Amino acid sequence: MILEIVWSYGGVDGAYVKYNTGAGVVEGKLNVHLVPHSLDDVGWLKTVDQFYVCSNNSIQGACIENVLDSVVKALARDPNRKFVFAEMAFFQRWWLEQSPETQEQVRKLVDAGQFEFINGGWCMHDEATAHYIDMIDQTTLGHGLIKSQFDKVPRVGWQIDPFGHSAVQAYLLGAEIFTNAFPIHYSPPEGFNFEVSNDFEPVQDNTLLYDYNVEKRVNDFISAAVTQANVTRTNHIMWTMGDDFVYQYAESWFKQMDKLIHYVNKDGRVNALYSTPSIYVDAKNAANVSWPLKIDDYLPYADRKDAYWTGYFTSRPALKRYARMLSGYYLAARQLEFLVGRRSSGPSTSRLGDALGLVQHHDALTGTAKQHTTNDYEKRLAIGAFEAAAVVDNALSCLVGKKPGGQCSSPALTFSQCQLLNISFCPATEEDIPDGKSLVVVAYNSLGWNRTDIIRIPVTDSDLVVHDSSGNTIEAQFINLDSVTINLRNFYVKAYLGLSPQQVPKYWLIFQVSLPPLGWSTYFISKAATEGHETTVLSTLSNPQNDTLEVGPGDLKMLFSSTSGQLVRILNSKTGVDVPVQQSYLYYASSIGDTDDSQASGAYIFRPDRALPTIVSREVPLKVVRGPLVDEVHQQFSSWIYQVTRLYKDKEQADVEFTIGPIPTDDGVGKEVITQMTANMATEKTFYTDSNGRDFIKRVRDYRPDWSLTVTQPVAGNYYPINLGIFTTDNKTEFSVLVDRAVGGASIKDGQIELMLHRRILKDDSRGVEEALDERVCIANNSTCKGLTIRGHYYIGINKRGTGARWRRTTGQQVYSPLVLAFAHEKMEDWTASHVTIATTMDSSYSLPQNVALITLQELDDGSALLRLAHLYEPGEDAEYSTLAKVDLKKMFAGRTIKEVKEMSLSANQEKSEMKRMAWKVEGEATAEPTPLRGGPVNVSDLVVELGPMEIRTFLLIF
Amino acid sequence: MILEIVWSYGGVDGAYVKYNTGAGVVEGKLNVHLVPHSLDDVGWLKTVDQFYVCSNNSIQGACIENVLDSVVKALARDPNRKFVFAEMAFFQRWWLEQSPETQEQVRKLVDAGQFEFINGGWCMHDEATAHYIDMIDQTTLGHGLIKSQFDKVPRVGWQIDPFGHSAVQAYLLGAEIFTNAFPIHYSPPEGFNFEVSNDFEPVQDNTLLYDYNVEKRVNDFISAAVTQANVTRTNHIMWTMGDDFVYQYAESWFKQMDKLIHYVNKDGRVNALYSTPSIYVDAKNAANVSWPLKIDDYLPYADRKDAYWTGYFTSRPALKRYARMLSGYYLAARQLEFLVGRRSSGPSTSRLGDALGLVQHHDALTGTAKQHTTNDYEKRLAIGAFEAAAVVDNALSCLVGKKPGGQCSSPALTFSQCQLLNISFCPATEEDIPDGKSLVVVAYNSLGWNRTDIIRIPVTDSDLVVHDSSGNTIEAQFINLDSVTINLRNFYVKAYLGLSPQQVPKYWLIFQVSLPPLGWSTYFISKAATEGHETTVLSTLSNPQNDTLEVGPGDLKMLFSSTSGQLVRILNSKTGVDVPVQQSYLYYASSIGDTDDSQASGAYIFRPDRALPTIVSREVPLKVVRGPLVDEVHQQFSSWIYQVTRLYKDKEQADVEFTIGPIPTDDGVGKEVITQMTANMATEKTFYTDSNGRDFIKRVRDYRPDWSLTVTQPVAGNYYPINLGIFTTDNKTEFSVLVDRAVGGASIKDGQIELMLHRRILKDDSRGVEEALDERVCIANNSTCKGLTIRGHYYIGINKRGTGARWRRTTGQQVYSPLVLAFAHEKMEDWTASHVTIATTMDSSYSLPQNVALITLQELDDGSALLRLAHLYEPGEDAEYSTLAKVDLKKMFAGRTIKEVKEMSLSANQEKSEMKRMAWKVEGEATAEPTPLRGGPVNVSDLVVELGPMEIRTFLLIF
Repeated sequence: MILEIVWSYGGVDGAYVKYNTGAGVVEGKLNVHLVPHSLDDVGWLKTVDQFYVCSNNSIQGACIENVLDSVVKALARDPNRKFVFAEMAFFQRWWLEQSPETQEQVRKLVDAGQFEFINGGWCMHDEATAHYIDMIDQTTLGHGLIKSQFDKVPRVGWQIDPFGHSAVQAYLLGAEIFTNAFPIHYSPPEGFNFEVSNDFEPVQDNTLLYDYNVEKRVNDFISAAVTQANVTRTNHIMWTMGDDFVYQYAESWFKQMDKLIHYVNKDGRVNALYSTPSIYVDAKNAANVSWPLKIDDYLPYADRKDAYWTGYFTSRPALKRYARMLSGYYLAARQLEFLVGRRSSGPSTSRLGDALGLVQHHDALTGTAKQHTTNDYEKRLAIGAFEAAAVVDNALSCLVGKKPGGQCSSPALTFSQCQLLNISFCPATEEDIPDGKSLVVVAYNSLGWNRTDIIRIPVTDSDLVVHDSSGNTIEAQFINLDSVTINLRNFYVKAYLGLSPQQVPKYWLIFQVSLPPLGWSTYFISKAATEGHETTVLSTLSNPQNDTLEVGPGDLKMLFSSTSGQLVRILNSKTGVDVPVQQSYLYYASSIGDTDDSQASGAYIFRPDRALPTIVSREVPLKVVRGPLVDEVHQQFSSWIYQVTRLYKDKEQADVEFTIGPIPTDDGVGKEVITQMTANMATEKTFYTDSNGRDFIKRVRDYRPDWSLTVTQPVAGNYYPINLGIFTTDNKTEFSVLVDRAVGGASIKDGQIELMLHRRILKDDSRGVEEALDERVCIANNSTCKGLTIRGHYYIGINKRGTGARWRRTTGQQVYSPLVLAFAHEKMEDWTASHVTIATTMDSSYSLPQNVALITLQELDDGSALLRLAHLYEPGEDAEYSTLAKVDLKKMFAGRTIKEVKEMSLSANQEKSEMKRMAWKVEGEATAEPTPLRGGPVNVSDLVVELGPMEIRTFLLIF
Repeated sequence: MILEIVWSYGGVDGAYVKYNTGAGVVEGKLNVHLVPHSLDDVGWLKTVDQFYVCSNNSIQGACIENVLDSVVKALARDPNRKFVFAEMAFFQRWWLEQSPETQEQVRKLVDAGQFEFINGGWCMHDEATAHYIDMIDQTTLGHGLIKSQFDKVPRVGWQIDPFGHSAVQAYLLGAEIFTNAFPIHYSPPEGFNFEVSNDFEPVQDNTLLYDYNVEKRVNDFISAAVTQANVTRTNHIMWTMGDDFVYQYAESWFKQMDKLIHYVNKDGRVNALYSTPSIYVDAKNAANVSWPLKIDDYLPYADRKDAYWTGYFTSRPALKRYARMLSGYYLAARQLEFLVGRRSSGPSTSRLGDALGLVQHHDALTGTAKQHTTNDYEKRLAIGAFEAAAVVDNALSCLVGKKPGGQCSSPALTFSQCQLLNISFCPATEEDIPDGKSLVVVAYNSLGWNRTDIIRIPVTDSDLVVHDSSGNTIEAQFINLDSVTINLRNFYVKAYLGLSPQQVPKYWLIFQVSLPPLGWSTYFISKAATEGHETTVLSTLSNPQNDTLEVGPGDLKMLFSSTSGQLVRILNSKTGVDVPVQQSYLYYASSIGDTDDSQASGAYIFRPDRALPTIVSREVPLKVVRGPLVDEVHQQFSSWIYQVTRLYKDKEQADVEFTIGPIPTDDGVGKEVITQMTANMATEKTFYTDSNGRDFIKRVRDYRPDWSLTVTQPVAGNYYPINLGIFTTDNKTEFSVLVDRAVGGASIKDGQIELMLHRRILKDDSRGVEEALDERVCIANNSTCKGLTIRGHYYIGINKRGTGARWRRTTGQQVYSPLVLAFAHEKMEDWTASHVTIATTMDSSYSLPQNVALITLQELDDGSALLRLAHLYEPGEDAEYSTLAKVDLKKMFAGRTIKEVKEMSLSANQEKSEMKRMAWKVEGEATAEPTPLRGGPVNVSDLVVELGPMEIRTFLLIF
């Protein structure tokens, strides 16, 4: 018996529609490339793992497992469907969990071009506050996964969410790259966001149901396409069919796109197709038209007149410093890991690499994630650092052990390292040195040059003496710990380690060390029979010799007013450079929005209220500490700003250590704290800031070189990200400031440089975080919380015009790669008898040229080594160093035989010779830049690598 | 070159886990049956099609396409996964759109028991306000789809969301059914709702990620299971793994359930399994324990002390009336469609059946959908009615055409029908009768009995004369149209049809007709030479003969006070029954919540404020209209309540027509309007209300037979749904009131009956609708809106104790199945010469027994006929009629040869002989009810169907 009641109306014919989704590019029509994608932040409102596994959905209903699961199923339904994916940190998590069958299915989808990896970094890195080495490393990590699992090389960059674009980013991608600007956003045109449970008008083509709307939706589609085509060259436009965390249920998107492609193409006025950025770019290229050329960068970014995204250049300065510090440490640790050989088990540097890869994300390092997510990043960094420290321990133990050429499977020695040295916490140096033993300090230099530097360690006694590895006593200086440092130590050691050390060290012990390139030296600190070299303490108020106080044991001198306590001038007695400079701390009051515009200052956005910045103090209590190695000027600008300026005997720079916080907010006002240096220089609105720690880019106040700027935010709109430094010049002097982390900086008045060092804000800036950037640090189960205090350094250099680059480049490398210190206790004689106390790992006569840095040296799983060398100078930057440099690999890898050298692409996922580059026609081609100087191929016999200015070359070495 | 960087930490082993989901029932353990389901309202906050296609998601992110698409994909991933689905209106929409491949896949899933249809009606019908015929019809519709497409018969009822359960529902499912009560809701235990983007704690078993929590989640699971087991008999518990509109992305659920089943069973303390209600019920049955027996019903329902869900018994009275009116029309139209044979093309009754099926939904007919959804239901009903009217037109044209036995493929005649007769709009009767022609009125009687009835039509002239089909002039009565009706007509004809008729009819023309069973009669209305029979108009105020005014041309008399205008008593001069009765209108002020409880009265919930109801008026202007056929008492209770009580010469009932609205809300107070009849009878708290228009159930005020009631809402808590009627008795009299639609009713004081007729409320009652039940009707592009006015009828009967059932049952059938009227204009002689003016479609000597109703007669697609016969009396209800009844199918289908009769299950999806019934042990088995009297098998030779009291039998007939 068949009851057919339900079938009796309207007929069943035609209810099932097989959609024709197979369109390719059609010549002579407007082609609408539908590019399905999901923008998946590796942490933001939730942590990366929360985003992955679907937890914490009360904050945000987002789950990357769902995206990838459902996309793969949706792609399998129709071979015409396509999808692009970028964030490999997520993909890796998912890939590991898949069955062999699913992995096989994905491989087929990748091979068929249905699933395409684009960009393919570990994350979609920030471009303002990330260091170029970190950008390269994180991209390498992602590309390595794609290469190893799919043998694919991403063709397309996909940096669609970072808040502006840097010049270095373009360099990393290639010489001339085709760039697509979206009309508004990386989402579809309005009405075409088909996320499950979102509000959209579905294509209703079932005539048996109400609200059939095929014609209407086809018209909507064509109208949106024509609108976009009107502002786009060629008859190809791209619709980014995705948004943040969408494709939770991919079929919801594909079902609608299937219908649109089917009906739009049936209509025939335009051609709709499933596409990818690769297909789109190929089509653009094939059109063979000329394109405008954009040089420099896209910073700063603003999305409204009062919404300059320049706050994040500084937001979360502690995270930014931690990431930068570990970036240098990761570089050194990988070197050491390479030098002794990777272990198949036990600690490795990979976890730190993974964490650093994540943290480059454009909502991580930027300081624009929620606090709990930031905590997660910091936890990952800490765990990674802990494991990397074990690698460093093991490697140093092995290297200093007297087994030249041998393996060191189980080093007997365990070093201590001190990550909180900056706040004077280092148990290894504080504790009493046992009778007859010494505190052994092994310092590793990850730079390829010889180096002298200063070691500062906290000690409890001043009756200590320092010997070098030849047994010579070397000069040491003791400086009393100041109370600001002691207070910081007490609170933060409790907060970060849960420890309350009963004793506090009394002194900083300071001594100068010298090290070979890519090598180490050993120093011994022992109890002396007589009292140590005591420091001299001068109080200006008690001892005003005259109006001005001069400090500096070496060539560089600084003069302070003994009445106001303020800096007056800086001079170099050797070069004769002499600049009147004032320096002070000020803060911008954060706007909370006003009647004109509700935009508040926040984690992303810097919007000062309309007033001038407030000066913290005009009269500064000042204390001077003098000694043979360093003079220190201690200035208490306020209860929450303490500054120590250090002038070392052998360094031509002022090392300024600032301690800022907790920023007071009792008055209900958020504050964004700057240090402002005002030199008496006619700088003509012009200053220079680095791009990701690499190129310096000319900035002109209230001006953009390629478009007409209307000044709406005279301060925020002139801020730029600083990763390496900022400088300005007049006709005779360069005034430079280098930084120890990413900060925002500007020159708001001629001769002036300001850096924003810390921010504490009480309102959210409405870009999604929904938390004020009000960082607190807590102890005692969160019962006691204080606003975050940060401590850091900036470095001031003054140079004759045209000579500053050397100081900036060389000092910059030293700041990025501080010495790695490892401590032990042992009898000096025993140690020197059984250990290598000083050595380079290169040929003993060799060091890298001063214009070349070793930016990657890493052993890969197959035993080969990944080597990256970077030329540090731009063309014309320095008369001597902006030239072709040469690195002798045989000498660099002394003691090893290089069997094979393959030059690779920057991310090391293909041989350089295999790389294909598209040709693009540029408007006004004649005015284009000259071809840059580049090194030639590496000759197999002499193995010398040439590098042109700013060139980075990547090699795979097999020994 | 292989870069394996990302693989170097933690190891990759074990990241992919194949979950063991294959558990079945395990004896000796607590078995947790996970039953994946999605509760998908066929309209509520959105319309049924909006829910289906994903539109209007700003109201609610719900899309049934996604549910079914994604469930099918998820089931295909693992043969152990299961899912149950109930709402066939949705399934049908989806099924039609699927490719043959998907349909094949679904058939396999159904055959394998992975996808199971449960309940399987067109919707999940309401159980309080739905008529039993509609309940059967909509279930038949759904079951037919399942049978035809999958050859399956649902085993399990799944009425998980209706607001209470009726006795009839249990009857329809079977004699003794096993019922499961959920601990709280049909959702999972807290923390186990795994809807995509919902906030839940996923099972995190990947040790490479943070927040691994397998043990915790296993413990959570076991804890929730044990809690439920503690209130459940046997070691089987069911977890309803679903909720409203969930499984938008089914994998999100199944992934978590896979993991839970795997890890919980690995733990071993309890046994978790994918299950269905069928599997669960089998397991319960196999446990062979005794269960408590629940009789009567589960009404009214309350979810908090002040939240009695008794408002929806009345909410949206116009929708309720429209649905009930079309229910009777659908029954008649299907009869007619059967009588002339279904057409393969052209109009059919199916669309009306579909719409009525939808409207039985527990958020449709209940009045608890949003207004725009309600509009959609009404539109569907209207479209269905329009098409059914064409069927009726065609069929009547065919039947009355003189071609006995022949086919009528293209009837020449087109009748007019009038759906707005109640507000005096009927162009066919209003327009001038052309010279020489007559207005031909064909009246069809869908009851199986001979019938006399009254026809009332609006006419413009009073010089009309009525003839029967034999040419005899029959008595007619003209009554002036009252102004209330004229105003209603003007506004609502404009509102519903967009018409503004220039002329208004002046009179109601009333005449009495008599009809054969399942047949028709024809009447002719022509212009008379002389003025028609004028009506007598008496105004009590102008003509107070004495204190009391008696009306009623027949046996039944009503006495009114000529001073107050109020009803005083009702008496029957034939039976001698005489009851003092007052009648008045009152309203409850809707609670807006108070300090004690924030619960407001609303679409679902009736919560009067704490005061007594307000009487609308104590003195009522009254007008009496007397005539040969009917006396009318017109009472204007207020500007917004008008009542006409009609006493017909040959009817033993008072037909009360009420016109209520717009309910004034200028005072900011929502009002719930009741009519209250207070008889001087000692009813001892007891009254009787029907269940879905069928059984009468004894109700005792402030009392529940099987549990101890605490009275928190003395009015709302004593309300019951009325579909057929309500009555109460003392030791000599039955006082009965029948209704024309579902309303709420009660007996709050002895001798009193009240019906809630209309509600207009200004606040939402917080059950999700988020709209106040404030119905408005608009004209002129919504520029003029008024609160809804409703017009309807209730019928009062007084009978000697023990004799009321006949009046209620017979009158109830007449109310449900009014005459179907069709109009034409033709010369009387021509018509009678060429048409059959009066006929039954049965044997001319036959009619159905008075205790049997024909509730379905419908031709199916294969030409067979679906026949349902219902015994109308309960055991003991009537001395004569509560007995075995017999229907002679040969006589009923005179002129046809019945080849085969198959007795079917109620929903006609299997032969009755194939039905399997489970045996359940009942606690205290001895006290169980006696076996009811049931008809025996139908003898093939005599084809007589026997029906015991309240029995419904379903047959498939092949001619």
